[in-house]
Amino acid sequence: MLHDPNRVYVFDTTLRDGEQVPGCQLTTPEKIEIARELEALGVDIIEAGFPISSPGDFQSVVEISKAVTHPTVCALTRANKGDIDAAVAALQYAKHPRIHTGIGSSDMHIKHKFNSTREEILERAVEAVKYAKKSVEDIEFYAEDAGRADIYFLAQMVEAVIAAGATVVNIPDTNGYCLPDQYGQKIKFLKENVKNIDKAIISVHCHNDLGLATANSVAGLQNGARQIEGTINGIGERAGNTSIEEVVMILKTHQSLGLHTNINSKNFYEISRMVSTQMRMPVQPNKAIVGANAFAHSSGIHQDGFLKNRENYEIIRPEDVGFPSATIVLTARSGRHALKYHLERLGYSLSKEELADAYQRFLVLADSKLDINDDDLVGLMTGEKVSN
Amino acid sequence: MLHDPNRVYVFDTTLRDGEQVPGCQLTTPEKIEIARELEALGVDIIEAGFPISSPGDFQSVVEISKAVTHPTVCALTRANKGDIDAAVAALQYAKHPRIHTGIGSSDMHIKHKFNSTREEILERAVEAVKYAKKSVEDIEFYAEDAGRADIYFLAQMVEAVIAAGATVVNIPDTNGYCLPDQYGQKIKFLKENVKNIDKAIISVHCHNDLGLATANSVAGLQNGARQIEGTINGIGERAGNTSIEEVVMILKTHQSLGLHTNINSKNFYEISRMVSTQMRMPVQPNKAIVGANAFAHSSGIHQDGFLKNRENYEIIRPEDVGFPSATIVLTARSGRHALKYHLERLGYSLSKEELADAYQRFLVLADSKLDINDDDLVGLMTGEKVSN
Repeated sequence: MLHDPNRVYVFDTTLRDGEQVPGCQLTTPEKIEIARELEALGVDIIEAGFPISSPGDFQSVVEISKAVTHPTVCALTRANKGDIDAAVAALQYAKHPRIHTGIGSSDMHIKHKFNSTREEILERAVEAVKYAKKSVEDIEFYAEDAGRADIYFLAQMVEAVIAAGATVVNIPDTNGYCLPDQYGQKIKFLKENVKNIDKAIISVHCHNDLGLATANSVAGLQNGARQIEGTINGIGERAGNTSIEEVVMILKTHQSLGLHTNINSKNFYEISRMVSTQMRMPVQPNKAIVGANAFAHSSGIHQDGFLKNRENYEIIRPEDVGFPSATIVLTARSGRHALKYHLERLGYSLSKEELADAYQRFLVLADSKLDINDDDLVGLMTGEKVSN
Repeated sequence: MLHDPNRVYVFDTTLRDGEQVPGCQLTTPEKIEIARELEALGVDIIEAGFPISSPGDFQSVVEISKAVTHPTVCALTRANKGDIDAAVAALQYAKHPRIHTGIGSSDMHIKHKFNSTREEILERAVEAVKYAKKSVEDIEFYAEDAGRADIYFLAQMVEAVIAAGATVVNIPDTNGYCLPDQYGQKIKFLKENVKNIDKAIISVHCHNDLGLATANSVAGLQNGARQIEGTINGIGERAGNTSIEEVVMILKTHQSLGLHTNINSKNFYEISRMVSTQMRMPVQPNKAIVGANAFAHSSGIHQDGFLKNRENYEIIRPEDVGFPSATIVLTARSGRHALKYHLERLGYSLSKEELADAYQRFLVLADSKLDINDDDLVGLMTGEKVSN
């Protein structure tokens, strides 16, 4: 099934799981623009929408199918014929269509959401896959709330849907509940105990309710999953989905994992800003990989070490994710070394005594002012009073 | 040493590692206000500053020491007498003072930052602890960049500083480099191989450069660490520190870990907003635990399941972290069930046919409008045109 056993497929659901967030709704032209950027980023699958949910969503799947060439375009359904018919119709122009169908797998969902039994749910799952398979070859099945599902029933369900034709089996931690070792063990169990598991790709779909989506996704990949589902900036319902940029950069940074994706990581910064702006979802400055401060060194100890050798405090080069450059910011916590760096950048060459003297004036100023800019530094050296 | 082997100590460094971020600098009165909230939250240790770094920071440690009663107040130093003298002086009014001293432990830092050797660094580490111990009983030692340090040298360093009097040994992943299993193994190795390790508490101090700070901290606790260092909202240099609120709620949600803290989690929402406002650091809506959307259900499938039984999609009750209540937001992705819920809340009791009819009008409106508010719903029911 897989040509390269170490290749991880990236499934982006920014336009489906991400877009269903309050305030994030996009027009079809906006979605097309993001889909084209996702294609440039190199994602393997774009989940374009949930066609049965509204006429606008249906139309977006149609238009995204027309707009992109290389990525697979995927449409979400529940496990029923009406949903699947709508998805098949919406995907008619897709060069590589995929249907993403599924049903609850935890007893909590089976009893309290579907008011059903394991046997009946299993039957509905198999029927949905078989029905979708009549129209589309590439069928992904999601076992909703797999994070809380009984592992033996989950294995039975996965085996049954693969036998019915599923090419990808998605094991979502729908509520962001699992710890990384638990989630990793779940994937490992499926990999080792589902007898036809090699006929499908295992996919990880994690939510960030406890801040563990990225770690859980990586634990899944370490245990045999080869598709990762997520969004740009980790947007999504509640605390959001896995941040694609985090997982991709972990695989790049930890070469020892032996896994790789097709992502052009230099595009991350740009697409992060585009998604944030269009979806009106701010990215906090301390967001990993794409936050405004992600590569900003500010403490004296760190600045000093960074200036001696950037690898002291930098494990990813900012240019690898499209950031202009790492920055050294001057605050009251900065040391002499950082002040010297900036003064030299501005053309001041100081003796040790002059620097010590300037540093004392700098500390007084920095205790009363948030950030010290170039004008402040020039004022410091020319003796002019600096505005606050 | 430890009275309760399952008690995890919470070490807050919002006012030190958090505050050294560009734009986050606080005045002393602002720091006192946050320190008092941290005391109310129930943190065990407040790292109040780095006294040698600036006169303002020195004064803040003095004033915080006076302002709080129960928490240990901690001051940061490098491994030299001048730094330690300043910390001792700044902590003079602390009821429970702690000095946090340390030095680089990775070969990268030893060679490229200190231009030194392992032997010399070990000596400086031991001397610093012994010197600090003359003035203060509670000494925490940080082995900077432990995440990338040789594990045998790290074990040697930890053993030596405990012998010298360290009560807490901090194993920081300074650059946010480790994977959870790697970091957990590191803690496990120390726990199993450092012969006097039971004489000290192992502390985890993680950074979020790869989005793994929370997972790494939990992996450390699972392997024997009993102090966790972090900040409110995960603020801190670059991609920030571990989010205290995430780790605490993981321990609460996963009772099977058998670990507990002294934190009043109901205070999280309030202190999160206070820190965000005072430090001018926005919290993104999809931030776990404290983001504005952390408990907002918006998709139709989720809303429907949530209304049937909130545990279908909610693993933490929002009131447990001080959130007003979970919210059901209406968008084009909402289902009939959610619409019915809101219409009933507004006093409309509809037959199945009336609801189906209202839902069609709702979808048309929702496709052209981001969020549907109560006025829109009333307009929908009274036939008035709704403004966009």
